[in-house]
Amino acid sequence: MRQSHLFTKTRKDIPSDEISKNAELLIRGGFIHKEMAGVYAYLPLGLRVLNKINDIIRDEINVIGGQELFLTTLQNKDTWEKTGRWDDNVVDNWFKTQLKSGTEMGLGFTHEEALASLMKNHINSYKDLPRFVYQIQTKFRNEARAKSGILRCREFLMKDLYSFTRDEKDLDEFYEKAKQAYVNIFKRVGIGDETFITFASGGTFSKYSHEFQTVCDSGEDIIFLSREKNIAVNKEVYTDEVLADLGLKKNELEEAKAIEVGNIFKQKTKFSEPLGLTYADEDGNVKPVIMGAYGIGPGRVLGTIVEVYHDEKGIIWPESVAPFHVHLISLCKGEEMKKADELYDMLVKKGVDVLYDDREGVNAGSKFADSDLIGIPKRIIVSQKTLEKNSVEIKHRNEEKSELIGIDQL
Amino acid sequence: MRQSHLFTKTRKDIPSDEISKNAELLIRGGFIHKEMAGVYAYLPLGLRVLNKINDIIRDEINVIGGQELFLTTLQNKDTWEKTGRWDDNVVDNWFKTQLKSGTEMGLGFTHEEALASLMKNHINSYKDLPRFVYQIQTKFRNEARAKSGILRCREFLMKDLYSFTRDEKDLDEFYEKAKQAYVNIFKRVGIGDETFITFASGGTFSKYSHEFQTVCDSGEDIIFLSREKNIAVNKEVYTDEVLADLGLKKNELEEAKAIEVGNIFKQKTKFSEPLGLTYADEDGNVKPVIMGAYGIGPGRVLGTIVEVYHDEKGIIWPESVAPFHVHLISLCKGEEMKKADELYDMLVKKGVDVLYDDREGVNAGSKFADSDLIGIPKRIIVSQKTLEKNSVEIKHRNEEKSELIGIDQL
Repeated sequence: MRQSHLFTKTRKDIPSDEISKNAELLIRGGFIHKEMAGVYAYLPLGLRVLNKINDIIRDEINVIGGQELFLTTLQNKDTWEKTGRWDDNVVDNWFKTQLKSGTEMGLGFTHEEALASLMKNHINSYKDLPRFVYQIQTKFRNEARAKSGILRCREFLMKDLYSFTRDEKDLDEFYEKAKQAYVNIFKRVGIGDETFITFASGGTFSKYSHEFQTVCDSGEDIIFLSREKNIAVNKEVYTDEVLADLGLKKNELEEAKAIEVGNIFKQKTKFSEPLGLTYADEDGNVKPVIMGAYGIGPGRVLGTIVEVYHDEKGIIWPESVAPFHVHLISLCKGEEMKKADELYDMLVKKGVDVLYDDREGVNAGSKFADSDLIGIPKRIIVSQKTLEKNSVEIKHRNEEKSELIGIDQL
Repeated sequence: MRQSHLFTKTRKDIPSDEISKNAELLIRGGFIHKEMAGVYAYLPLGLRVLNKINDIIRDEINVIGGQELFLTTLQNKDTWEKTGRWDDNVVDNWFKTQLKSGTEMGLGFTHEEALASLMKNHINSYKDLPRFVYQIQTKFRNEARAKSGILRCREFLMKDLYSFTRDEKDLDEFYEKAKQAYVNIFKRVGIGDETFITFASGGTFSKYSHEFQTVCDSGEDIIFLSREKNIAVNKEVYTDEVLADLGLKKNELEEAKAIEVGNIFKQKTKFSEPLGLTYADEDGNVKPVIMGAYGIGPGRVLGTIVEVYHDEKGIIWPESVAPFHVHLISLCKGEEMKKADELYDMLVKKGVDVLYDDREGVNAGSKFADSDLIGIPKRIIVSQKTLEKNSVEIKHRNEEKSELIGIDQL
C-alpha cells in the first residue's frame, strides 16, 4: 500500500486522559482511535493487525474441531433469568437497553446462556455430542474503571469457544486440546515466551480454571511464577493449600505483574442444567450436557503485544502480526522516484506485504520517525545514495545496524 | 466438511411468530437462529454465505479506493448533539444505554457523526483529500415492527462506505464509481438481473438519492420500473414533476414490489459543517469537506437472495455465495462407504468446496430433502448402483434431470 494513500496520519499528541502505553503508541501510530474511555475504533493499520491475530486464532481453533458462528449482541431477559445472571447484583457490568415496547434487553458480555439455549435445537442425543462452537464477536462490559487502553474495554472483540460433551472425561480431553491450541496461538502471535499457564479460581464448579498470563509490568494481575517449571499461580488462589496441591514451594516462585490474555474454564452443568440443555444416552437416560468455555480477547492480545514489544521510539511488531512485513521508504526525488516505484511494483508482484512511503515533501528524519513508531519489522530504504550503488539499505526495526544489498539480490 | 460433524440440524418447525419466507427457509436449513424478533444469529452455514457476500463487497469497494476500518457501537451523546440527531424526536430508532456513571450512550444506527469527528485528526488540507473509508460492522435500530426476517432487523451487519472530497465535482465522480461498484456487487452475488437503480428522495441537500431495488413480491417498497430503460422511481418521489425531470412517461412504467438492497446518498456538508470537518484549500481558505454515504446490508442481501431464489423444497443458492459448491451425498453402506470417503478426500484435495453427507442411518429421501432445503448448487450422489458402473450421479439444484458420469471424469 502507498503511504500517500493511507488516510491515517501519525500523531504527536494523544488524548489527555490516556495513560496506557499501548493506547498511546497505537493512537500515535494511527492504529486505533479513542471514541471514549474503554471504547476504541480500529483504523486500517490496526484492523490489519487485528485480522492477522483473528486468523491465527481461527486456524488453531478450527484444527481442534471448532465450528464458527456469530451470535447476537442483543440478549433476552428471559434466557438470562434462568441462570440468575440477569440481576445487576449478580452481574455488575451489564449494559442494558430497551425495545420501543419497553421490553428490557441486555448487551451480551458473554454468551453461555444464549448459546446453550440455541444448542437445544441441535443436541438431543449422545450421537449429537461432542460439539465445539466458537465466534469472534463484540462484547460489552460496563467497566467502572477503563484506564488500560485496549487491555480493558467497555466494548471489545472476544473469541469465545464453548465445548459441549457428554461427560467429564470428554470435557477433560477437549480441555487439554484447547490448552494446547492456546499455547500455539500465543506462540504464533509472538508472546509465547512470556505467557504462562496460570492456576486460578475454578468458581463453584471446578477446583481450578486456567488463565494464560503474559508477564508484563503494565499487567493488572499478580501471579507467582516458576519459569523453570513453566507454571504459575494467580494471587487469588496463592495459598499454602493450593501450593501443596500443585507441588510448588514459595521460595521457587517469583512474583510478577501479568496481563490475562486468555482463560479456559470447566463450567460442567452450571449453565446446561438451569437452561435445560440435555441429551439422552444409549439407554435413554436424560442427562445434562457438560460445558466448557475458552476465551481470548484479540484486542487485548494486540495491546499486550504492544506492551511487550516497544521501545522509546514506537512499536516493534512480531512478523506474524505486523500490519505489513516490509516498510519501503523512498528518499528519492524527481526522476529517481520512478526507480522507487519500480521497486515497489516488483515487491508487490512477488507477493510481499509492503507499505511504501512514497510521500513527497516529507523529510528523511520524519519518515524514519514514523517508521519506528509504526514498527514494521523490516525497513528497506531507497535513495539517490543507494541507487548510485544499484542497491538498497536494509534495517530491522529491532536492530541498530543496517546493510546495503544489491537490488538484484532483493 | 462432513455433514456428520456439522453441529446444526435441519428443522421441520420454525418459530411460531415467523412469517417471512427468508427466515423460514434459513431457520429450517440451519443457516440462522432467531434470538428474538429482528435479531438473528448466524450459524456455520449462514456465516459461510455471509462471509462470501462480505468478501465480494470488500473486493469491489477496495478496487475504487476504499480503506477498511472498524468503528464502535457505543456512541457519544456530545458528538450526536452537534448534528441534532441525538434527539429521539429526530431519530426514532435509537437504542440507548448508560455507563455506571449515568452518562448516556447510544448504539450506533449509522456512523456519519462518529466518522466525521474521527476524520478531523486526519484531514487538514486539500492534500489529504479525497478519502474513501468503509467498514462492515453491526448496526442497531430500534424498529417498532420487525416482521420481515433478516430483511429488517434490530441488529444487523452493514457495509457503510463514506467519501470525503474537496468539492462536488469530486463527489460526483466518486458517486458514479460507487454506483458502478454496487452494480458489480449485485451482479456478482446473483441478483443483478432483478436489481434496478431507483431514484429516491435526496433529503434536504440533494435532488435525488439512488436506491438499489431488487424486484420481489415480498418487498416492502413500491417502485415504478422501466425494464427497457433500466431505471426505476421510488413511489415516494413518483410525481409528474420528477417523471418529467427524468424524461419518463407513466405508461412505460410498471409498478412492482421491491427490496432496497443498497443506497447511495450525497450528504454534501450536512455532517461536516456542524461537526467542523474542514480543510484548507491551495489559497488557505477553510472549507467544509464534502461527504457522501454508500450503504449495503450484507444480511439483507442474503435474505433477498433467498426470497428471489427458492422453490417449495428450499433455497437455490447462486454459485458465488453458496455455502458450498458441491453437496456430495453418500447412499453407501458398510464397505462401500470407503469409496465415498475416497471420493470426498479427492474432491477436497482438488480444492473443491464440498459438504459431504456421510451420515449413516439417514435414508435417501431425508438426505435429498435436506439437500434441497440447504440448496447447494451441484449435487453428486454416490451409491451402490452408481459404483457398479464406476460412476456418480450429478444433478443441479435448479434442474430436474440428472446424469451419470464416470468417476475418472469427475
